[in-house]
Amino acid sequence: MKLHILGMSAGVAVAVSLAGGAISQAQPPKPAATFLPDGRMAFPSDYRTWVYLSSGMDMAYGENAGPTNAHVFDNVFVDRVAYAHFEKSGRWPEGAVFVLEIRGAAAEGSINKRGHFQTNRLATELHVKDKRFKSGWAFFAFRGEGPGIEFPQTSDCNACHEKHGASDTTFVQFYPTLLPIARANGTLDTTYLATENAAVK
Amino acid sequence: MKLHILGMSAGVAVAVSLAGGAISQAQPPKPAATFLPDGRMAFPSDYRTWVYLSSGMDMAYGENAGPTNAHVFDNVFVDRVAYAHFEKSGRWPEGAVFVLEIRGAAAEGSINKRGHFQTNRLATELHVKDKRFKSGWAFFAFRGEGPGIEFPQTSDCNACHEKHGASDTTFVQFYPTLLPIARANGTLDTTYLATENAAVK
Repeated sequence: MKLHILGMSAGVAVAVSLAGGAISQAQPPKPAATFLPDGRMAFPSDYRTWVYLSSGMDMAYGENAGPTNAHVFDNVFVDRVAYAHFEKSGRWPEGAVFVLEIRGAAAEGSINKRGHFQTNRLATELHVKDKRFKSGWAFFAFRGEGPGIEFPQTSDCNACHEKHGASDTTFVQFYPTLLPIARANGTLDTTYLATENAAVK
Repeated sequence: MKLHILGMSAGVAVAVSLAGGAISQAQPPKPAATFLPDGRMAFPSDYRTWVYLSSGMDMAYGENAGPTNAHVFDNVFVDRVAYAHFEKSGRWPEGAVFVLEIRGAAAEGSINKRGHFQTNRLATELHVKDKRFKSGWAFFAFRGEGPGIEFPQTSDCNACHEKHGASDTTFVQFYPTLLPIARANGTLDTTYLATENAAVK
């Protein structure tokens, strides 16, 4: 499944912020991300109880994305503190953590007669907002539930999120409950708004 | 969208219990469901912060399910108290509430080149475990965020969940993180296990 996993990295609906100013908090909550002494990231074992943002199926962002043989779903979760912060302000706070999981998609099973449902987890990636990184954000990839390895700051994930994220380099254009919040708070990037306006014409 | 909404009722990944014994609780938590004096159900406005169970795309259970023109996603959430209870016991407690939302699926938007992502909400249904109902469970359908109307206890939803739910009449066969919990706790129905064994042969 390696190719699919790599393909999905581009299809991530996870997102992020370079420009967004962190809102000060008198008492910082316990961080959702746990960095290990060697720079790796502990697997966020409780992410399935975080706030769900959205799912896609077979998404890909590359110009040369061809058809796919094996179908996959992607699910995106964000930690509860960051979600509450965004709900109020349309901005991600320092320490915000997003988890993307890729799951298999099955058509045949039980009484299902059409479409697809989700099966086993194939890959997990994490996106964290932390000042320790040059851009203010970093991606980590996990093998199973072992520690996560950081992507280079120049990775395709970083570059694409920085260029195309609708708000604060986050892909809120793919999160239907967050997009109106960013719009109401005036936190949609001008670059994104320009493409949105161009599409409407 | 009425046909799609009805079609999706059958495709619901929501589920339920007739047989499961409620585990006694010294101090019952605040109910996730709010019944109105007239028997209708208040819209559960905070369900997007509940625990996400899974999503499907274009699922249908009927034998005559043909191809679909407009694609849809379904997302299922369960209240946090019920989720914690199931995690420990493989059983749903009295008061458990599931919310199914149907969302549109778009292929073209932003930088997406393949597959589909979720858009606006088209319909919301709720499934609640409560002794006030003859079977111990009931479904409610909402129009927008107005009060929900109860399905008859003999509805297709009720009948299908009672007949095909893998655990306690719940469709945990479509919830990849719950299926192993039910299996470990021995709470998978014998009827479901028989069909699973038949499929393996």
